[in-house]
Amino acid sequence: SSEADMSTVTKPTNPGSDPRVSAVFADIRATRGGDFINNLWHCLACDPTLLENTWRDVKAVMATPSRLDPMTKQPIYTAESIANNCSYCIQSHTIAARALGMSEAQHAEFLTIVSLAGGMNHLLNGMQIPIDPEFNHDQQT
Amino acid sequence: SSEADMSTVTKPTNPGSDPRVSAVFADIRATRGGDFINNLWHCLACDPTLLENTWRDVKAVMATPSRLDPMTKQPIYTAESIANNCSYCIQSHTIAARALGMSEAQHAEFLTIVSLAGGMNHLLNGMQIPIDPEFNHDQQT
Amino acid sequence: SSEADMSTVTKPTNPGSDPRVSAVFADIRATRGGDFINNLWHCLACDPTLLENTWRDVKAVMATPSRLDPMTKQPIYTAESIANNCSYCIQSHTIAARALGMSEAQHAEFLTIVSLAGGMNHLLNGMQIPIDPEFNHDQQT
Amino acid sequence: SSEADMSTVTKPTNPGSDPRVSAVFADIRATRGGDFINNLWHCLACDPTLLENTWRDVKAVMATPSRLDPMTKQPIYTAESIANNCSYCIQSHTIAARALGMSEAQHAEFLTIVSLAGGMNHLLNGMQIPIDPEFNHDQQT
Amino acid sequence: SSEADMSTVTKPTNPGSDPRVSAVFADIRATRGGDFINNLWHCLACDPTLLENTWRDVKAVMATPSRLDPMTKQPIYTAESIANNCSYCIQSHTIAARALGMSEAQHAEFLTIVSLAGGMNHLLNGMQIPIDPEFNHDQQT
Amino acid sequence: SSEADMSTVTKPTNPGSDPRVSAVFADIRATRGGDFINNLWHCLACDPTLLENTWRDVKAVMATPSRLDPMTKQPIYTAESIANNCSYCIQSHTIAARALGMSEAQHAEFLTIVSLAGGMNHLLNGMQIPIDPEFNHDQQT
Repeated sequence: SSEADMSTVTKPTNPGSDPRVSAVFADIRATRGGDFINNLWHCLACDPTLLENTWRDVKAVMATPSRLDPMTKQPIYTAESIANNCSYCIQSHTIAARALGMSEAQHAEFLTIVSLAGGMNHLLNGMQIPIDPEFNHDQQT
Repeated sequence: SSEADMSTVTKPTNPGSDPRVSAVFADIRATRGGDFINNLWHCLACDPTLLENTWRDVKAVMATPSRLDPMTKQPIYTAESIANNCSYCIQSHTIAARALGMSEAQHAEFLTIVSLAGGMNHLLNGMQIPIDPEFNHDQQT
Repeated sequence: SSEADMSTVTKPTNPGSDPRVSAVFADIRATRGGDFINNLWHCLACDPTLLENTWRDVKAVMATPSRLDPMTKQPIYTAESIANNCSYCIQSHTIAARALGMSEAQHAEFLTIVSLAGGMNHLLNGMQIPIDPEFNHDQQT
Repeated sequence: SSEADMSTVTKPTNPGSDPRVSAVFADIRATRGGDFINNLWHCLACDPTLLENTWRDVKAVMATPSRLDPMTKQPIYTAESIANNCSYCIQSHTIAARALGMSEAQHAEFLTIVSLAGGMNHLLNGMQIPIDPEFNHDQQT
Repeated sequence: SSEADMSTVTKPTNPGSDPRVSAVFADIRATRGGDFINNLWHCLACDPTLLENTWRDVKAVMATPSRLDPMTKQPIYTAESIANNCSYCIQSHTIAARALGMSEAQHAEFLTIVSLAGGMNHLLNGMQIPIDPEFNHDQQT
Repeated sequence: SSEADMSTVTKPTNPGSDPRVSAVFADIRATRGGDFINNLWHCLACDPTLLENTWRDVKAVMATPSRLDPMTKQPIYTAESIANNCSYCIQSHTIAARALGMSEAQHAEFLTIVSLAGGMNHLLNGMQIPIDPEFNHDQQT
């Protein structure tokens, strides 16, 4: 599409022809249990090393069982993406959270927290108040 | 302290003398089950309306049982605060998450997600790639 | 002081010895009607061209009568500085607004607007909603 | 429209059927003196509590006579929105400022201040210089 | 186009009729060695002073031989623009870097650095660790 | 020190006792050709996996010969860090650039570019102008 033309990188027309790329694509499909590969990975295929490293990190952090549950991990990722205003990340990780079972009502609550935090962050940055010594993390544990 | 002098607002020396302030302070203490009131609320006491409204929102969103559990809500708030670089908020909400039981290992995982998201946000903003039409939210539900 | 040591630029120990620097310092003093020159200008003196250009712009935009009144201009500058989290700018332009007559109550209202906008910005970035075609600026005039 | 499909929330097709929503919409129309309700409120109608609270705050802070005049309040809001890069907020609050009488020339001056502040914020964050003790707010009053 | 209608400023339909504007446009063409003038300058033509000052600064900093080479200067500008999420600046300065000879592989490496830095910035802001006194700049020189 | 107490992570008191940590520390020392290990790595030692992965990435991207020269790579990293306002990163990567030979004059020029870009980013985000179709990257190559 004409929109796609504005990417600053060139999406390979035949990514499967590079064995490093097709290995990553196969692992994405296996990990996610579906055939669809979104634009991000198609565009990263322009640099197989960047593609491999990016997928390695996303898979390890977001798609591997860990100490935080997935329903906590996706909103953390999305909150960060909202504050950094990355539309692509907001869309894809909201979809991911919804696919994990986040209801519309929980999503609205998520947005309420993000809005509250955004407002408080700016209020506090505007006030320039000192951090309470009681917040010392060594005293907490 | 000399640091406190750099606040852009004036912390009332005797906040309890204003009944609206002392009502909010009493509710903070009752809600949190402790006597300590952190600097934020002391400084907001310079404007009782702002104090009341801020506490009303923080209490309703963060300190009231809801559809998301507190161990999910605090890291969402902290992720946003990290991206907006509000040291005060990062400190206070990390403390809150730890008090709720977030272990050091979970905190390290939280930081790993925040770091991954921060990197991906910048990578994608740099690539300017179009959002997949498959991300359409109406198709998801 | 030890804090000053962390600047990434070297503050000249005798800035007055450079005629370009002393001309700018003289103009700062004349424009502001006072002797005090804050750290920013002392540090910029490490590069006389950057010092001259920075002062030229700040003087033209902020210290010259124009179509917006100073009590509107300083809070615009400070709001931007809060969102960009520049402590130095927040401090100096809050001082400037107070010196122009902004009361404590007006400052608290300013912080309320900044907090509301910060929250709304994040709420809307999280919602990713389309801009109303009715916002077309050509239809407004 | 196809663009609207990318919202992360679902705009109710018949918002007037919920009495809480129709009460807010009626108050928006009465407060603004016009029939048009922009997308933001239509989308917030997916969560009546979030809709009510958001309108309560926007009305109280931006649409109620206060200590700062509207022509000062709208540019503060817009400056914050530019720094947070919220296109929706930039568009709607620029429209609001123009409707209040901000001329094209004043808008150009507003953009000049925003650009100067954005540049200075980054210059100072890059220099990491200490804040002058003379900026102490207690000494100013 | 309908997209252009969403600009918050009005692009003059006949910019050449203002001698200050046509002087700047002539200098842009001479400096760049081409006839094309991008939208930014057309829109700035709504305020000749802002146009003149903006071009003066961009020409002096980015289009004049200096101590840093152009292939270093453009990526610095683009990195900043990615972090501030200015699509227009990302597009135009990526184009400029490519025109100077930055290869696709170097661009991919640039994006890798930007992504690493974005992740590290958020990791460190989340950790709130003190700056090593050994980073003192006076000890380095 | 009391400042260190405010970190949100706990710096191990004896990091060398963990063989994974001491292997990373040894590689940092060998790569940099010096004994000093800065706070970042000491704090990351609280989570050996995060330490290993972070050092792996920083070493591969910033400390390995590549298609961009180090004097270009460090300022890209620092520009991003300034926009994200990470003091720790600004300090450490400015030091790194200076150690590579960046003169005070080049550093001042770097700051001038960062300031120009920061201002232009905000100006363009405020103007909301459409991206020129001529910026299409496919037409450039």
